[in-house]
Amino acid sequence: MIKINENFLKLQAGYLFPEIARRVNTFKDQNPQADVIKLGIGDVTKPLVPAIVKAMKSAVDDMGTAQGFHGYGPEQGYGFLVEKILECDYKPRGVSLDKSEIFISDGSKCDTGNLQEIFGIDNVVAVQDPVYPVYVDTNVMAGRTGQASKDGKYEGIVYMPCTAENGFAPELPSEQVDMIYLCYPNNPTGSVAEKATLKKWVDFAKENKALILYDAAYEAFIQDDSIPHSIYEIEGADEVAIEFRSFSKSAGFTGVRCAFTVVPHKLKAYKKSSGEAVEVNPIWNRRHCTKFNGVSYVTQKGAEAAYSPEGQKQIKEVIQYYMNNASVIRDALSSLGYSVYGGENAPYVWLSTKDGMSSWEFFDLLLEKAHLVGTPGAGFGAAGEGYFRLSAFNELDTVKEAMDRIAKIS
Amino acid sequence: MIKINENFLKLQAGYLFPEIARRVNTFKDQNPQADVIKLGIGDVTKPLVPAIVKAMKSAVDDMGTAQGFHGYGPEQGYGFLVEKILECDYKPRGVSLDKSEIFISDGSKCDTGNLQEIFGIDNVVAVQDPVYPVYVDTNVMAGRTGQASKDGKYEGIVYMPCTAENGFAPELPSEQVDMIYLCYPNNPTGSVAEKATLKKWVDFAKENKALILYDAAYEAFIQDDSIPHSIYEIEGADEVAIEFRSFSKSAGFTGVRCAFTVVPHKLKAYKKSSGEAVEVNPIWNRRHCTKFNGVSYVTQKGAEAAYSPEGQKQIKEVIQYYMNNASVIRDALSSLGYSVYGGENAPYVWLSTKDGMSSWEFFDLLLEKAHLVGTPGAGFGAAGEGYFRLSAFNELDTVKEAMDRIAKIS
Repeated sequence: MIKINENFLKLQAGYLFPEIARRVNTFKDQNPQADVIKLGIGDVTKPLVPAIVKAMKSAVDDMGTAQGFHGYGPEQGYGFLVEKILECDYKPRGVSLDKSEIFISDGSKCDTGNLQEIFGIDNVVAVQDPVYPVYVDTNVMAGRTGQASKDGKYEGIVYMPCTAENGFAPELPSEQVDMIYLCYPNNPTGSVAEKATLKKWVDFAKENKALILYDAAYEAFIQDDSIPHSIYEIEGADEVAIEFRSFSKSAGFTGVRCAFTVVPHKLKAYKKSSGEAVEVNPIWNRRHCTKFNGVSYVTQKGAEAAYSPEGQKQIKEVIQYYMNNASVIRDALSSLGYSVYGGENAPYVWLSTKDGMSSWEFFDLLLEKAHLVGTPGAGFGAAGEGYFRLSAFNELDTVKEAMDRIAKIS
Repeated sequence: MIKINENFLKLQAGYLFPEIARRVNTFKDQNPQADVIKLGIGDVTKPLVPAIVKAMKSAVDDMGTAQGFHGYGPEQGYGFLVEKILECDYKPRGVSLDKSEIFISDGSKCDTGNLQEIFGIDNVVAVQDPVYPVYVDTNVMAGRTGQASKDGKYEGIVYMPCTAENGFAPELPSEQVDMIYLCYPNNPTGSVAEKATLKKWVDFAKENKALILYDAAYEAFIQDDSIPHSIYEIEGADEVAIEFRSFSKSAGFTGVRCAFTVVPHKLKAYKKSSGEAVEVNPIWNRRHCTKFNGVSYVTQKGAEAAYSPEGQKQIKEVIQYYMNNASVIRDALSSLGYSVYGGENAPYVWLSTKDGMSSWEFFDLLLEKAHLVGTPGAGFGAAGEGYFRLSAFNELDTVKEAMDRIAKIS
């Protein structure tokens, strides 16, 4: 008898974005004339920049010729892209990595979801709360949790609250934790971690032989140069941390699909019974080569072009465009008396609702009265209750119109 | 303490293709002048056809404009591609599927590797022997096996020998099995399954509440119209089978990355304790949407173009080119007195070595005396010992040259 993996049955049905879509569709059905503005989902809106378009078209042409055709590539990615990553993303920030520590993939969602597979089931997982749901759900699927309680928390996971009270910087856990997911710049709160904060986490991980899974998908939005882009800017982090990077938001690749993961050779995990240390890099390499078959050559040529001088100039202009939107949102909400966080080194603005309004009440209010869609903070976790996320990914005029509409109902 | 998933430590180090690469590189170092011909790895060699190149370039152009830009797409794939699959791959063969039963992905290696995750750890896995290593290795990683024995077999897996004696058609298992991997047209033996054979498997799966994981990645190479392309051509298969399809070999997408999986709504798995039936489709949908983020828009437009009238004409010409190669290989080897199998409805020719020579002895002989690389049958499993795989993916002149070289040493 074929038995289902019953861990999947623990997953809660009401995933955040489908629930938002459901409410938006219901509203639209009842108000077909309404011009609904979406600042909800974190999807980019600007087209690919010309340097990337040119490179990808040229790569497609390659694929149409006998000489330029590329079949199976290296599962870990082409050298031409890995070298650019080392040279442009890491070297300028004083981080020296080896080519074999980089694994090109088709997205950080996949990487952050898949990476946990190579670790034992009885590791204790710690996450920031609010949190990107993929970290939690993939650990539920793997069997590292019990059932969910009424507030949506899964038994066995250590939730680390991030609220205005602690400046959205979680305390170090007091219990034993083994796999710590950290996301900076943070989705959804838009907060960042200074060097001292990351050093605290690296020291903690070393002392506790814990692993940090560091999601830096939004590093390109950092404006303040004192903020680390990589956890490896902290000495010793290569002994305790895996880092996730993505072209989705930096180069507008949400529909193109390219990312990478860094697994340093110095990183060790341990056998449960003997405590014997095992190098993690070759284990991930084996997983990556067995359950994945490399990223499209065309996509990798596009990602490479993001590192060319013109590519860099063009994608940075797009990022500044989004960051200007974030600034417009911050200013408008502040002037309306909202407490506003994030949006300075991240494309997300995180706000407190007023008068104790719940996240979903505020969602419904904005949708019904301002025809504006954002993301309820409670959807990211219990500690997100009373907060709300607005994304800077849209046209400036649309963002301004959205702010005018909020002003009218505030 | 971060604990490793110790199931990964059970994996055998000597994976087939790296070992082949090692021997070839050693030979090349010692014989730098040798012109080595490769008929080993199953990678296509012909460029993308013009209809696909045109569609992909047009899609890249779309991505460079505000109107045509596509960010996150549906994780399950765009409707435009799913509809073509239903209309062109299934309807003409009398198979009616719903859109929601198709999941577009970035490759069949990924799909066949990932699919097992949604089933319980205590299911018993059955595989054809010789076998595509990914089916086995991903189940080892998941913990469905014990250690490997000396002959490379993992404890707990049911290996079903496919040899000349049984016409490469395995017997039905006599023990309880829950997850049955079948690959037709078969990699590596090139054998195919007739309707009666597949019906036998479907009936067996129904009787035993087992699941068939049907890998049809090579269906486009079927020449004999009486051979089913899909397991769903067998009545009732939609209650017991998942099917994997790929554009890798049919449209030359090994470096482009697109495939799909069919998970019918009628398919059920069961809770271990209660035996309660659970629909598999929504479970896979949840896994697919949580650990995967859709295939590149550009890639999906390329795959769509493979179904256009000109796309169909062009990719069929490429397939016939490869099948002519296969015929050349078959004829040459037969006339040299080798027993030859496959290569009639599959791009792989499977041959018996002569005089009791082992697969690796034959590999070394061909490499050293004919400067020709193939794949030793033993690398695919114990029952592949004494066999050898030659791939039809190459230029005709090269294939002819390879056959001349074999003739000289035979």
